[in-house]
Amino acid sequence: MKSYREELWFETKTRRAYLNITSQVEAAVRSSGVTEGLVLVNAMHITASVYINDHEPGLLKDYDEFLEKMAPQNATYRHNETGEDNGDAHIKRQFMGREVVIAITKGHLDFGPWEQIFYGEFDGRRRKRVLVKVIGE
Amino acid sequence: MKSYREELWFETKTRRAYLNITSQVEAAVRSSGVTEGLVLVNAMHITASVYINDHEPGLLKDYDEFLEKMAPQNATYRHNETGEDNGDAHIKRQFMGREVVIAITKGHLDFGPWEQIFYGEFDGRRRKRVLVKVIGE
Amino acid sequence: MKSYREELWFETKTRRAYLNITSQVEAAVRSSGVTEGLVLVNAMHITASVYINDHEPGLLKDYDEFLEKMAPQNATYRHNETGEDNGDAHIKRQFMGREVVIAITKGHLDFGPWEQIFYGEFDGRRRKRVLVKVIGE
Repeated sequence: MKSYREELWFETKTRRAYLNITSQVEAAVRSSGVTEGLVLVNAMHITASVYINDHEPGLLKDYDEFLEKMAPQNATYRHNETGEDNGDAHIKRQFMGREVVIAITKGHLDFGPWEQIFYGEFDGRRRKRVLVKVIGE
Repeated sequence: MKSYREELWFETKTRRAYLNITSQVEAAVRSSGVTEGLVLVNAMHITASVYINDHEPGLLKDYDEFLEKMAPQNATYRHNETGEDNGDAHIKRQFMGREVVIAITKGHLDFGPWEQIFYGEFDGRRRKRVLVKVIGE
Repeated sequence: MKSYREELWFETKTRRAYLNITSQVEAAVRSSGVTEGLVLVNAMHITASVYINDHEPGLLKDYDEFLEKMAPQNATYRHNETGEDNGDAHIKRQFMGREVVIAITKGHLDFGPWEQIFYGEFDGRRRKRVLVKVIGE
């Protein structure tokens, strides 16, 4: 069994952002040399998500509006009594999810026609990481 | 390490549907010959989910009503300006999730007493796929 | 390839509870002898979650209030017509998720600075299980 580990680093200019990281994950799979296996891609921070959906600008705005309506930045959160201001981001991240697990088949991400991997940032403007871990043969 | 791949195809008669696919996944695990490992089951389309919960008709209606209230089909979505009419389905799918990962122990799905695998369709009436990928020994 | 399986049992005193199980999962990884691989941690019951987020008491209250507002215990659920009273718990669990998959690197959970594993109970006061399944080398 082979294993491979890589970190992807991001620093978004806005508090919330949605970045397509598919090609970076595909490159990590290529570096791993694994042709049959699984790749785990997860946010290493707890106010960000990794999720799979469509790369369509209207949809990214729909998600952003939905999340802000569901857990508004300026609502009252007990978490913010600690001095933080990101209580909303912890809730938004739970909706979009922490991680995805993707099949690797014949050396590639085994994807349907529209699947793309996104890094969802809900408390950005600082350096944060995504972990890519590959196992297989 | 062994690996195995199978696609399950669905075409629901209704726009939204909830199909119990547990026996099909169990059959794929049997075909794989893997007795200890993991199986990934994921929607290959971005307006559908694979999730694990109870096979109880009332609950399926509860989920459906909850999801339709959360993201109504007839609300306004920027995604629908592209000519699509499934903005709601992309949001419903995020709530229910894209994938499940299940342990395989002694050749079987390692499940608690009520765990069942469902395909959640939010934009059906066309052929769509689920990927089953098994790795292990 | 090595594999390892362990069950963690819980019986919470309250209907809803959020328990940090990170050290128990770390101990299971140690017992497995796996130094490079993946660990799956999932609720074996369908009214509970395993999720990763911050161990901060205010945040746990934020989650609890958010979930109770989203799917109130005393609302009307078709599922409860079966004699159950936990329709709300099935919806809360879908929001928080069933499972997490965590990379194992050099024998440890490969975590960012604040990641902690939680068991989220939404229908407690009875014995329920979490499955820890490790695969790797």
